[in-house]
Amino acid sequence: MTYLQMNRQELEKEREKLEKEYSRIEQKHLRLDMSRGKPSPQQLDLSNPMLDCIDSKSDFRDKSGFDLRNYGILDGFAEIRELMGSLIGAAPEQVIVGGSSSLNMMYDAICRGFTHGMLGGNGPWCKEKNLKFLCPVPGYDRHFAITEFFGFEMIQVDMTPQGPDMDQVEKLVSSDPAIKGIWCVPKYSNPQGYCYSDDTVRRMARLKPAAGDFRIFWDNAYCVHHLTEEETPILNILEECEKAGNPNLVLEFASTSKLTFPGAGVAILAASKENVSWIKKQLSFQTIGCDKLNMLRHLRFFQDLDGVRAHMKRHAALLKPKFDLVVNTLHQNLDGVGIGSWTEPKGGYFITFTTPEGCAARTVDLCKQAGVVLTEAGATHPLHHDPKDNTIRLAPSYPSLQELAQAMEVFCICVRLAAVEQLLG
Amino acid sequence: MTYLQMNRQELEKEREKLEKEYSRIEQKHLRLDMSRGKPSPQQLDLSNPMLDCIDSKSDFRDKSGFDLRNYGILDGFAEIRELMGSLIGAAPEQVIVGGSSSLNMMYDAICRGFTHGMLGGNGPWCKEKNLKFLCPVPGYDRHFAITEFFGFEMIQVDMTPQGPDMDQVEKLVSSDPAIKGIWCVPKYSNPQGYCYSDDTVRRMARLKPAAGDFRIFWDNAYCVHHLTEEETPILNILEECEKAGNPNLVLEFASTSKLTFPGAGVAILAASKENVSWIKKQLSFQTIGCDKLNMLRHLRFFQDLDGVRAHMKRHAALLKPKFDLVVNTLHQNLDGVGIGSWTEPKGGYFITFTTPEGCAARTVDLCKQAGVVLTEAGATHPLHHDPKDNTIRLAPSYPSLQELAQAMEVFCICVRLAAVEQLLG
Repeated sequence: MTYLQMNRQELEKEREKLEKEYSRIEQKHLRLDMSRGKPSPQQLDLSNPMLDCIDSKSDFRDKSGFDLRNYGILDGFAEIRELMGSLIGAAPEQVIVGGSSSLNMMYDAICRGFTHGMLGGNGPWCKEKNLKFLCPVPGYDRHFAITEFFGFEMIQVDMTPQGPDMDQVEKLVSSDPAIKGIWCVPKYSNPQGYCYSDDTVRRMARLKPAAGDFRIFWDNAYCVHHLTEEETPILNILEECEKAGNPNLVLEFASTSKLTFPGAGVAILAASKENVSWIKKQLSFQTIGCDKLNMLRHLRFFQDLDGVRAHMKRHAALLKPKFDLVVNTLHQNLDGVGIGSWTEPKGGYFITFTTPEGCAARTVDLCKQAGVVLTEAGATHPLHHDPKDNTIRLAPSYPSLQELAQAMEVFCICVRLAAVEQLLG
Repeated sequence: MTYLQMNRQELEKEREKLEKEYSRIEQKHLRLDMSRGKPSPQQLDLSNPMLDCIDSKSDFRDKSGFDLRNYGILDGFAEIRELMGSLIGAAPEQVIVGGSSSLNMMYDAICRGFTHGMLGGNGPWCKEKNLKFLCPVPGYDRHFAITEFFGFEMIQVDMTPQGPDMDQVEKLVSSDPAIKGIWCVPKYSNPQGYCYSDDTVRRMARLKPAAGDFRIFWDNAYCVHHLTEEETPILNILEECEKAGNPNLVLEFASTSKLTFPGAGVAILAASKENVSWIKKQLSFQTIGCDKLNMLRHLRFFQDLDGVRAHMKRHAALLKPKFDLVVNTLHQNLDGVGIGSWTEPKGGYFITFTTPEGCAARTVDLCKQAGVVLTEAGATHPLHHDPKDNTIRLAPSYPSLQELAQAMEVFCICVRLAAVEQLLG
């Protein structure tokens, strides 16, 4: 019997039972965190050998003979641009290698648009009024935070299992020159784990924006982060934009944050040659160049794309059982209860759980009181406001399997309790 | 006899002699570069052992137990803030550790002022008109490039051996709220190698700016970069500002670029607690955090300030003979010729040579044609315009002693030739 089919008495009995279970877990004084997409210590251990790839006796030169210990090379040396480009199918000349954070490269790209303007625009965005940005929801809180910080009005677009609702996107982008961009996580999206369909990617590439400086911010954060043997492919947006006669439409981002070490990896921006040349000119005022020794360390560790793939299989071996545990626990506890649905991604770092409307914040609160920290409710929406209050992002990567089992037990009790409470009014 | 004392015939004879010497060196087809303040390969070798300070078997936790391989810690962990702060006499809580480039941290600080505003101001600078910035000249080209990029009118202030002319600075800063900052390299200044006197530092700290968001950009790039046993001290600007009741007046910058590896070092911003708190709030939109493993590598290598000092003595042992060679060659070739003067710094990376007015660009050109690349003439001034065309920055660090001897021979011939040419009209 689903909760919706229960009468008041049955619901009250259910609440009583759940409250007892809740009291029992409260007394365990748990301290579990599944709030962020952090790799586990065991995953980090996989990359420790990278730290042996450079030592005091290494040859520090790139193929051209350049001493990578010294100043120079704004955009990264050729071999690292080739390796990093291969993750997303970009040619070396389409790649700018930055520091350790792709999020920082996205911030910088928006910021340069704001202070100086994008290729094809009418100058700095800060001189324009009513800047707008499209935000597929649910999405990534740190994306939304950047556009919030720069004062963009964030227009929500619905996510579907095939990607953003392209009818909405096309209509908005073609009619309003104040819309300067759209946030996209095309593969194993944050937080649902959806992959954009070929049709979605092609429609993105064929957009006819009213603004000449509109850009798709294509955060390919999980480009090689498969959980299963079935490596869901997505179309190459750089190629599709080129084919569509829109080569400058997209700025693509990726990093090794979840390949090697978060915060100590290598990040890239990839784009058309014309965009790259425009950006490098601006970038030359920002810095002399980023950490080339860390680039060399990554290059020597991975060697090539095959090295990356082999490494990512080791990550998957650690991550897959965690995703399986979450999904199985949800099935065991919630199948037939009728109070929620969830995604079952084949890659990435997140699962999205959809509660009955109005129950997400309460569920997250109940979990927190019981010692299980989830991503804050609302974080998946611009301005931290989830209008239906029904979206919860689950991040299974960091806790151990044992901790995760405990956390998911707590979660299932809390989501049921929140739902019953609501039904009882 | 100085050139000024020569008659036309004598000058023509001198030119003929110099032209012969110039032809002789042209035929050597030299390819020497003393254009940038790059450490030599031998200097870089000094820091190679740092790369052994972290390997796959290391303990990656800071004192608090935080795993530095993972996401987190926006401003750097406590021990690295302590070590980096010790370079400039800043307390750990005054320090934000950034990525590998202090130049990037300066760009970012200006940029955040432009997009969002500084503590004490009236909002984003991009909303104000006629932004201005004080530029002591000669100065550092990359500083001036940043303020040029953001459209500041750059007001030149004269440098003296004691620092910027404070009469000019005080008058300008106190009267014009459009003036938002001043570029300073207080110790072994770029390009003259001057150290600000106690009086200069105190007057800086006591400035009463018309703009509430005026900031001294205190680029302490050469804070521990002494060439001699006599380690010229400068007053601690953070302390002086505090004493003067102006704690928020200064943003100080430093890095290990010329301690360990340029581009792969550790950079900091230091400021009052109030500034730090303001900046960290803004910074949280830019990134999750910088490369903490590289910070750990630096910490384990240096241990403490004594470790830094010992390391810098090894740099000085390599650099001092080069500075001596330059200065000695200038004395040998130009004493009594009356066509130039030069600084003789006790630290830093540069020597400034002052030619007769109108001779700097020609000298640099002649050197270039003879295969010796110097810093572009004009680079020491905003917009690359040296009004007297008499400033040349010499950077002795990168070439070997043998190369430097050749380069300086070429330089002395070129500066004499340019001077004779000018006198002959």
